Amino acid sequence: MTDFTSGLGKTAANYQALSPVSFLGRTAAIWPDRLAIIHGARRYTWRQTAARCHQLAAALTTALATHGTGTGDVIAIMAPNIPEMVEAHFGVAMAGAVLSTLNIRLDAPTIAYILRHAEAKVLLTDTEFAPVIRAVLAELGDDAPLVIDIADSEGPGGERLGVMDYDAFLETGDPAFVPAMPGDEWSAISLNYTSGTTGRPKGVVYHHRGAYLNALGNATTWSMGQHPVYLWTLPMFHCNGWCFPWTVTLLAGTHVCVRRADVAAIADAVATYGVTHLCGAPVIMTMLLNAPAPVLSKITGRGLAMMTAGAPPPAAVIEGMEALGVALTHVYGLTETYGPVTVCAWHDEWDAQPPAERARLRARQGVTSSVQEGLMVADRETRLPVPADGTTIGEVFIRGNITMMGYLKEPAATEAAFEGGWFATGDLGVMHPDSYVELKDRAKDIIISGGENISTIELETVLYRHPAVLEAAVVAAPDARWGEVPCAFVALKPGASVTTEDLIAFCRANMAHFKVPKRIVFGELPKTSTGKIQKFVLRAGL
Amino acid sequence: MTDFTSGLGKTAANYQALSPVSFLGRTAAIWPDRLAIIHGARRYTWRQTAARCHQLAAALTTALATHGTGTGDVIAIMAPNIPEMVEAHFGVAMAGAVLSTLNIRLDAPTIAYILRHAEAKVLLTDTEFAPVIRAVLAELGDDAPLVIDIADSEGPGGERLGVMDYDAFLETGDPAFVPAMPGDEWSAISLNYTSGTTGRPKGVVYHHRGAYLNALGNATTWSMGQHPVYLWTLPMFHCNGWCFPWTVTLLAGTHVCVRRADVAAIADAVATYGVTHLCGAPVIMTMLLNAPAPVLSKITGRGLAMMTAGAPPPAAVIEGMEALGVALTHVYGLTETYGPVTVCAWHDEWDAQPPAERARLRARQGVTSSVQEGLMVADRETRLPVPADGTTIGEVFIRGNITMMGYLKEPAATEAAFEGGWFATGDLGVMHPDSYVELKDRAKDIIISGGENISTIELETVLYRHPAVLEAAVVAAPDARWGEVPCAFVALKPGASVTTEDLIAFCRANMAHFKVPKRIVFGELPKTSTGKIQKFVLRAGL
Repeated sequence: MTDFTSGLGKTAANYQALSPVSFLGRTAAIWPDRLAIIHGARRYTWRQTAARCHQLAAALTTALATHGTGTGDVIAIMAPNIPEMVEAHFGVAMAGAVLSTLNIRLDAPTIAYILRHAEAKVLLTDTEFAPVIRAVLAELGDDAPLVIDIADSEGPGGERLGVMDYDAFLETGDPAFVPAMPGDEWSAISLNYTSGTTGRPKGVVYHHRGAYLNALGNATTWSMGQHPVYLWTLPMFHCNGWCFPWTVTLLAGTHVCVRRADVAAIADAVATYGVTHLCGAPVIMTMLLNAPAPVLSKITGRGLAMMTAGAPPPAAVIEGMEALGVALTHVYGLTETYGPVTVCAWHDEWDAQPPAERARLRARQGVTSSVQEGLMVADRETRLPVPADGTTIGEVFIRGNITMMGYLKEPAATEAAFEGGWFATGDLGVMHPDSYVELKDRAKDIIISGGENISTIELETVLYRHPAVLEAAVVAAPDARWGEVPCAFVALKPGASVTTEDLIAFCRANMAHFKVPKRIVFGELPKTSTGKIQKFVLRAGL
Repeated sequence: MTDFTSGLGKTAANYQALSPVSFLGRTAAIWPDRLAIIHGARRYTWRQTAARCHQLAAALTTALATHGTGTGDVIAIMAPNIPEMVEAHFGVAMAGAVLSTLNIRLDAPTIAYILRHAEAKVLLTDTEFAPVIRAVLAELGDDAPLVIDIADSEGPGGERLGVMDYDAFLETGDPAFVPAMPGDEWSAISLNYTSGTTGRPKGVVYHHRGAYLNALGNATTWSMGQHPVYLWTLPMFHCNGWCFPWTVTLLAGTHVCVRRADVAAIADAVATYGVTHLCGAPVIMTMLLNAPAPVLSKITGRGLAMMTAGAPPPAAVIEGMEALGVALTHVYGLTETYGPVTVCAWHDEWDAQPPAERARLRARQGVTSSVQEGLMVADRETRLPVPADGTTIGEVFIRGNITMMGYLKEPAATEAAFEGGWFATGDLGVMHPDSYVELKDRAKDIIISGGENISTIELETVLYRHPAVLEAAVVAAPDARWGEVPCAFVALKPGASVTTEDLIAFCRANMAHFKVPKRIVFGELPKTSTGKIQKFVLRAGL
């Protein structure tokens, strides 16, 4: 055998730990005068963005050293999609620290729990959230981190809680600061707390290697060319914005920030800045499709590409988006997988299918993204794949480089999640013969009625097809005879009406009778900050 | 500091050694019926390609085991751009072996040297090359590898030298073979011998990590979307086709093979298969621009994207390609950097420049590709960067993950190349104020005349501007008074004529007088198999 080991080791010339920090240096060197960030009246070129990130890193390095800490410290940020969020995705890593983005809709006790659990040393906080952060700081007392206030000129203003404003903090840092690069790419870059719909939030740790690879994976999976104009409708606090702060920077695109992803803001950004890409939960699509005509006209036919996850888009939504000329890409992922990790990769020949079939195909969660390795639907106990028949339900398992390092300070939970060398998603689905996965339910959402599995997603898909239905969620209601029975919660479109009897009849015409919801409740549906319907709230109300 | 090490280690769920082998499995699973390879009348879908690669890997595994060897063995291939070359880029790695692609224009003694140096265990050889391989085998005697003949139905036929034909060899392998994945991504995947214009060829070792990353880097640097139709004009034996066997597979594109990259074959492939991308040396462009009108009409306005390297394209060539509607991307690299490692990234605002200025901008070698880390022009001794003034000449240095593991069995040469933590390219250039590198010469080509450096590239650029000049190369001629003086070798366009006096006058009008060639020789220029002009041959004739 030829010896490929002697004299062929790693050196500084041929090895560099993978880190998305590299992307900013490259982009700023090549395109210094290109627009990096647009946020209302605020504008930053790549030269300015790099300088601000370097200043942030330098200021953090000094601040952490003053407190006797350094590399591996957690820096938290409480902010909507503003330039400072983009900057934090680079500046914190450049200081050798770990970024923890906080969900801006969380309550004070949960945020206090997270900051304490993460041992956050610095908190960057937008003044809009001063009321909740004031309560957090009171709760933390002497354990409170160093607080820096972000006073966004596009924001509503608000009370200052910290030692100084973000811009003054930047001024303390040198724009020529030399960024820290990780010695080991298997080093934490960010810490994302799960939404914690059950129990306490868990701290999901991402590393530099995964962030780098997923940034590239987003670009190839979504066929993104150079210079996308990316609209920040997906919160950056959610899975680091699916790694798009790094992808858009890699591609020397433009980050278009908005504090609120409402329909008017989206339409204006598309019309004004030529937005090419955006991501978001189905709620974004529902909002768009129900927008008034003058708003819609700003979006129609613009060749916009949208990536959506969180729930399979209903047929009516898919058709509506097609009519707007929006190229929809359906993806699926979890906090534990850096955001999207599967994609419903489209086949050209599917274009010729009738709308209902196109919608059925597109509603599937699909196949692995470019840089992920494995995806299977398997028996939860044996880890053996179920038949690829499109009907046998199993749990969805994932493996590869776009999977978290683990849960911070939860070795038992990490071990359980990774048992058998696969990450157990907790989602139930089927494998189709064409190797596309389709989710059927969360493991905890599936309804077992008289011994039969009932997929709540299947029922919701039928309900969404009814012309009066805006949103639908089905949960299990306890039942003396059947164990559990399906109960549907339905929000109607503005001005629409339908009776319980009519909707039940519609269900009976479109699904096996044992699956038909026994009860239908009309009203607005509770949602998480990322637009997911909170089924646990619905269940609690039963 | 927060502890990000405990319980957050690598597992099979969250870590996989990077390898381009993964791309084939994913693409074949998602797009089994999509066309993977076109070669004349031969057609393979991704399902078929994956099966053939698995069979090759299985057959090689058995063959190597029979000979008491295995992982890390070298498999050599002597073939033009045919399906078997694509298959070898996956099947060999899937057997845990290392691919060495041979330059099909090499002579028998050099090939024998390479096979002995590489300790090749198997040689896959296209029957067209039976005459030279017969001589190689005679020279190797008992050291000859196991030989498998590739009898391409699109080829000219030829004598069989091996134990069996490639297709029969595949038949011995199981299409369901489970590919070997490297345990360590820092493992050799291929071995590329330098062209050895001076001294013996050196064996440049690539690893799985670099091949994976450069495959992604090609896609993002060149804004390639899904499903490119890629024409194989660049030899796959050259730096593993700049890693495009892996890139095109990652993107589920189509490999269009041709045994000879002549103008008719290129035009037919563009017209027939809708080719979107191709790569090649400047000779390809010269060929195209001098093609007859009916051939050109098949290419014009097709939106073709071409990547070129090897020499900065002259202004006339750039303008000619623009007129054809070909989007030209100028890149630069070396065998040691997996092929292209810099790119002349285009700025939209340059479109408004006059043609000569556009050509000047585009002729620069540019900036690092997406996945490379560092590029500098520095003093050879001190490794300190020269001023970014566009005039101070220094050596070009490169660092990052797209740099070879080293030279096989040449630890001293490897150490010298990587001294100071940078790979010394041996090329001389300048750094422009906008951080774009422009090559001025090979270190060994620069002319030192009366103590002044004369860039041969600069002189050639001027000569190329003369309407009668097809190709030009300038080398140093010994001179009693000045030490060295420039001597120009010039090939004229068909039907064109110009006198020595006129050409000298043209030079005097366009460059400093001390740089004007003292002698001009007319005639065809000697070239390497990849289209590079062989200056050492010209020098030897002086």
